[in-house]
Amino acid sequence: MRTQVCIIGGGPSGLLLSQLLAGRGVASVVLERRTRAHVLSRIRAGVLERGMADLLREAGVGARMEAEGYVHDGAVISCDERRLRIDFAKLADAHVLVYGQTELTRDLYEAREAEGADLRFDCEGVAIHEADGDAPFVTYLHGGTQHRIDCDFIAGCDGFHGVSRETIPAAVRREFEKVYPFGWLGILSETPPVHEELIYASSDRGFALCSMRNANLSRYYVQAPMTDRVEAWSDQAFWDELRRRLPGEIAESMVTGPSIEKSLAPLRSFVCEPMRWGRLFLVGDAAHIVPPTGAKGLNTAASDVRYLFDGLAAFYADGEEEGIARYSDRALARVWKAERFSWWMTTLLHRFPDQSPFERRMQQADFAFLAENEAAQTALAQNYVGLPY
Amino acid sequence: MRTQVCIIGGGPSGLLLSQLLAGRGVASVVLERRTRAHVLSRIRAGVLERGMADLLREAGVGARMEAEGYVHDGAVISCDERRLRIDFAKLADAHVLVYGQTELTRDLYEAREAEGADLRFDCEGVAIHEADGDAPFVTYLHGGTQHRIDCDFIAGCDGFHGVSRETIPAAVRREFEKVYPFGWLGILSETPPVHEELIYASSDRGFALCSMRNANLSRYYVQAPMTDRVEAWSDQAFWDELRRRLPGEIAESMVTGPSIEKSLAPLRSFVCEPMRWGRLFLVGDAAHIVPPTGAKGLNTAASDVRYLFDGLAAFYADGEEEGIARYSDRALARVWKAERFSWWMTTLLHRFPDQSPFERRMQQADFAFLAENEAAQTALAQNYVGLPY
Repeated sequence: MRTQVCIIGGGPSGLLLSQLLAGRGVASVVLERRTRAHVLSRIRAGVLERGMADLLREAGVGARMEAEGYVHDGAVISCDERRLRIDFAKLADAHVLVYGQTELTRDLYEAREAEGADLRFDCEGVAIHEADGDAPFVTYLHGGTQHRIDCDFIAGCDGFHGVSRETIPAAVRREFEKVYPFGWLGILSETPPVHEELIYASSDRGFALCSMRNANLSRYYVQAPMTDRVEAWSDQAFWDELRRRLPGEIAESMVTGPSIEKSLAPLRSFVCEPMRWGRLFLVGDAAHIVPPTGAKGLNTAASDVRYLFDGLAAFYADGEEEGIARYSDRALARVWKAERFSWWMTTLLHRFPDQSPFERRMQQADFAFLAENEAAQTALAQNYVGLPY
Repeated sequence: MRTQVCIIGGGPSGLLLSQLLAGRGVASVVLERRTRAHVLSRIRAGVLERGMADLLREAGVGARMEAEGYVHDGAVISCDERRLRIDFAKLADAHVLVYGQTELTRDLYEAREAEGADLRFDCEGVAIHEADGDAPFVTYLHGGTQHRIDCDFIAGCDGFHGVSRETIPAAVRREFEKVYPFGWLGILSETPPVHEELIYASSDRGFALCSMRNANLSRYYVQAPMTDRVEAWSDQAFWDELRRRLPGEIAESMVTGPSIEKSLAPLRSFVCEPMRWGRLFLVGDAAHIVPPTGAKGLNTAASDVRYLFDGLAAFYADGEEEGIARYSDRALARVWKAERFSWWMTTLLHRFPDQSPFERRMQQADFAFLAENEAAQTALAQNYVGLPY
């Protein structure tokens, strides 16, 4: 068969791109390796920048996000017992929306399916062919049968472990990586969040994050060595450790309960350059990973979708190729700034095993400067709510 | 003999403190290990923050600085061919004064000598006694004779290698240090400065700084390994290397000439806590060192002098001990912010031998963000002109 844009990966980036293209009459097929249920079972962050929320509205999938998402006008950063609120509304004239990625993905599926979109699940052995020529195509196996999709363009929305990035020849690709010497041990619990805004907590014992999904679903994290076994962390041990890393007043008011999910995730910074190879475009995690501190992963995927959609829409509307040609440069310019912010937030707030006493003091001085300098707070707020596209 | 404050070290900190105290009728003796001529032969930076310039005026030694110092309303940061001007006047409503430390020290000597101050040179074997008691005293050798000065307080203004810091017992002291894996190779040349403002230049080949003493005396630096021998650097090699690190347009307009001084200096961050032990107060380099990027060394010594002078003046005026008691905490709070800024500027602009490609991109992203974000520029400008005392 033939389509205009073959989208590899049925996560939020691929679905959003498909939805936006459909709005301009551009046909696409979405190939997903897993089942629909599996995609919807993934628990991911959900702090949406202004620009991403605007893009979802533009795609016609913003209604439930508007109704059920939580507007956050600020966030709290603590350092031991000291608390600092970053006032997004005052400093950056903007807010973020807390709305789980799972919910967002569900909204996108429902919208796409309502329009009769071509979404294919359980696609195995996806392979990209002749992306550097004029007639690219994608092959895959489904139920033991080989399929082929011919297309104009391929959008690689298949994540860090997907086939898209690996399709770009090693001689063309340049990869940049930093693996942090710790992970985030996270739990989900059906308890009211300890605070109405997120709390990013730095302490001598390490980092902790108090986040949330809704009024009775809390998401908490503590920095932990990747060598820890999740099973060795009892709920009680988790709550005890979390409390020790929070300012006393917050720790005391925390409501605890049994965890309904517990996992340990690594922290990584990663960028692949370029993000375009011929008619193949890398989008989101396929091209770049940020540590979750700063909540930039999904949002940076969204800015890629914005740039790629604009380029493809202009191409199909009037043959304009400039947006496509500049996709990689435009996306990377913003990606690197999100990488910088995420790396800085991570470096500021975590304890590093090989950290010298001087470096620890630099973290504390960074916090002290931030706490009393409005310009530094403004720069943080502007990054957090999202730099301009 | 007996005095009120025994000041160890006849550099700018010690002289300024002595001058300020004299203005309140507080007697001091200044002990200097070297000769007057030697102190005045030291070539040091001379970028004065607003607060330091105010303090010099308050001390009655600001006249020549006002007449001959250069007002700088901004500075240039470059990254390869890109240039960014940080507008101190617009962003921080302030400027810095370029006025050499040598000139400043001369002004202080002249002012102190005009008032008949007790300044003693060639003092060998200075030792501090009973600083943790109520009757401290200082001994030294001069011309083979042992001398003793009894006093109320001792100000340790004797630099990083001085005796004052070492007098605080090791069990009381905590030292924080970072030694950078490079130095600054600097030359002084009787040529007009390449630019009317300072240029902090980052490039793939390393850092360079274009600074100045006056309209026909330029001070230039290039980052170099500390293993380099100064003699192996010909003037031509220096000029060639400097040019490669500057934006092309600036490099082309540079006037070169023979160097009249050439030296290689290490870069170090260092802080000693506490800065007070009983009746002994550490001031300036005796307690802390910054890498010169950011021009904070002399200025941070000046803020120490400010806090110590205020404390001593209040004590002698009406027996108020709070300023003395809080000296270490107040001084250190500002010191750590200056350390942070100097470390950040150094980390942003230099090449590090063990730097990963990802870390290099972080430097470039930091520059790119700074270049387009006014809040980040404001934070830099406010740090550069000097945070409030």
